[in-house]
Amino acid sequence: MNIRQLEKIDTLFVNCHLCTMADDRLSVIPDGALAVTGQQIAWVGKEEELPEALLKNIHLKARIIDCKNRWILPGFVDCHTHLVWAGSRCREFEQRLLGVSYEEIARSGGGILSTVTATRAAGHAQLYEASANRLTALIHNGITTVEIKTGYGLDLDSELKMLEVIQQLDQSFPVHIEPTFLGAHALPPEFKDDPDAYIEQVTQVLIPRVKSQGIATAVDAFCESIAFTPKQTASVFRAAADAGFNIKLHAEQLSDSGGAALAAEFNALSCDHLEYLSGESARKMAQKKVTAVLLPGAFYYLHETKKPPVQLCRDLNISMALATDLNPGSSPVFSMTLIMNMACNLFGMTCEEALLGATINSAKALGLDSKKGSLEPEKEADLVIWDIETPSDLCYLAGLEPVKQVMIKGGFLDTKA
Amino acid sequence: MNIRQLEKIDTLFVNCHLCTMADDRLSVIPDGALAVTGQQIAWVGKEEELPEALLKNIHLKARIIDCKNRWILPGFVDCHTHLVWAGSRCREFEQRLLGVSYEEIARSGGGILSTVTATRAAGHAQLYEASANRLTALIHNGITTVEIKTGYGLDLDSELKMLEVIQQLDQSFPVHIEPTFLGAHALPPEFKDDPDAYIEQVTQVLIPRVKSQGIATAVDAFCESIAFTPKQTASVFRAAADAGFNIKLHAEQLSDSGGAALAAEFNALSCDHLEYLSGESARKMAQKKVTAVLLPGAFYYLHETKKPPVQLCRDLNISMALATDLNPGSSPVFSMTLIMNMACNLFGMTCEEALLGATINSAKALGLDSKKGSLEPEKEADLVIWDIETPSDLCYLAGLEPVKQVMIKGGFLDTKA
Repeated sequence: MNIRQLEKIDTLFVNCHLCTMADDRLSVIPDGALAVTGQQIAWVGKEEELPEALLKNIHLKARIIDCKNRWILPGFVDCHTHLVWAGSRCREFEQRLLGVSYEEIARSGGGILSTVTATRAAGHAQLYEASANRLTALIHNGITTVEIKTGYGLDLDSELKMLEVIQQLDQSFPVHIEPTFLGAHALPPEFKDDPDAYIEQVTQVLIPRVKSQGIATAVDAFCESIAFTPKQTASVFRAAADAGFNIKLHAEQLSDSGGAALAAEFNALSCDHLEYLSGESARKMAQKKVTAVLLPGAFYYLHETKKPPVQLCRDLNISMALATDLNPGSSPVFSMTLIMNMACNLFGMTCEEALLGATINSAKALGLDSKKGSLEPEKEADLVIWDIETPSDLCYLAGLEPVKQVMIKGGFLDTKA
Repeated sequence: MNIRQLEKIDTLFVNCHLCTMADDRLSVIPDGALAVTGQQIAWVGKEEELPEALLKNIHLKARIIDCKNRWILPGFVDCHTHLVWAGSRCREFEQRLLGVSYEEIARSGGGILSTVTATRAAGHAQLYEASANRLTALIHNGITTVEIKTGYGLDLDSELKMLEVIQQLDQSFPVHIEPTFLGAHALPPEFKDDPDAYIEQVTQVLIPRVKSQGIATAVDAFCESIAFTPKQTASVFRAAADAGFNIKLHAEQLSDSGGAALAAEFNALSCDHLEYLSGESARKMAQKKVTAVLLPGAFYYLHETKKPPVQLCRDLNISMALATDLNPGSSPVFSMTLIMNMACNLFGMTCEEALLGATINSAKALGLDSKKGSLEPEKEADLVIWDIETPSDLCYLAGLEPVKQVMIKGGFLDTKA
């Protein structure tokens, strides 16, 4: 490292253990130190190897943080959420437990379309406030980067309203937000007899408008028997690719529709869910380096039994990421540590895989791995100090959020608001 | 209510919704109020019906708490924990995910006996500190009464050490603690070829000594193919009953050994786990009003598939309680809301059943239902103010602990330590 090129050090963490996630491994550094300059990590290593030049380069007002032997990990990257919504699906959750079927719930106006109705009806301020509360909860649980999808508007005004709320969250919170346009999430009631016409609306009107306003970085779709066909999904991808968006997909959650292969064909950043992923599609994902985003929250809430092919992903060297999938229907889950716990207990992932999945691999799923997801020089200083004995405790323990301190882009958060 | 018999009111909660759990139902009171005198609840009802006599009876220094439309529920009662232990089983959790079998783990010194070894070796202060941290986490998540079992000592000195740590926790924390002697938890290595001799030690030496020191209120045992036989369990119960202890049992977790029927025969307060409970044993439990304590944390961590017979319990009118079963091997779970969520998602319990299970029914499992578990006059003022829209949110949402304020016996806790 060339310390002379550094700006002055603003924060120096000492007396800590680091789990850096460098080189696609936990890359543990016991008795470590970490220096921050401005918004970036300046130096990471063993405390006893702190360069003299660096120590001379510390601001008079710099913070020297004695971590008291605690662990520092990169802030969690939550690469798949539907955090912006209005209304509640708690009643629906209760009805299902009382034995009411999905069909009956849907017939009585429940399911995803009830969230669409509530989100369309909500004013910007109401939608912002509900979303801000959820984002605050995620941050307090150690998440420092969040992807947020639209998809509860399903018409131009309502989708733009969601994107504006996401933009306002980005401006109001220190956390990094990636906005994703998910117009092809479900078929809106006004197009219920003509899905192709809705897809045309998405590709001809919504995607160009979202592009011109510059308020989303990616386009996502839901390719599934209960949502859109591979052909319809391909139309969306073509429009998205032409407009220069990153591409991602909800696929093979409830059946093998071949969506993952399609996503690979379009060089998607990620393909998400994947319980029914086939070997053939997996090989295409591997070839194109598409990240597999696994979502154990939805698996758990929907009482699914078919697990995603974790061993196949290992064999093919497909990066596995994890996300909360925060949404009111199938995954009202606000904790990445709980998601990691479920990834281990329900999917059989190892603790190392879960920890990489919530950090560097989740950053890959967003195309942000050059800036986020690991503790390395020149990456952004997003990190969490944890009161744990070993990083695997974050997977092993449940119902505990032992966050001591969160730093985002070099600034500390008040985590116990 | 006879307000003239009341002491002066110390705290009055207004502008709140109450879920009192009276009459074995949620018993919701919208727009309610609740008055506290000393350590007890003095009045509960609709705010508009607050008696004038009560309002005149408020201390000059009384706290009037505007709950801003939030919900008040009884503090959770956690009726089954193994909270006092030394060491960690995180490594074992990791090994299992890497494919190492239970047998191999046991052979290499892992499993419950590794916790026994660590707990025996730990000094009182070390054991107290680790336990106090765990208890703090439970309280912050809304638990105000905790049962704590011994069973990691398995010799006189170590079991007494555990009981002394429990006693010290009881003296240091405002939470109510019920200490349970679980000498018949596992066979200690020094008796590995002679379980009957260990049972004789438990019944002839340990139980009398625990009785004479007056530091436990109940005796528990583990009746299972991998633990003790019904005959051995009956010996323990006979000694416990003779000494005047309350009785409870870990039974039918991994097989139907008939433990539940035995527990009923001995008028046990509760029988716990019960995945393999038979109809015949259930009928005996119903007859003797033994509470069924269901432990979804252990079911989840052990990847079990056989669920406890919830419908049978409903049909027979058996009270179902829930508990964290907090322990380092099969349930390192620190959150009652997560347990309620699992009870719904994994066992198919309704939100009402889960909420009753974590409050009044859990109080029944400890024989404390005349003092704890519901918001009723003359019960102890143990309550939690929750930032939720409806009580079922506590079952529906995961990874969120929306505790705003905890009161135990009339005193407020600083919940965000």
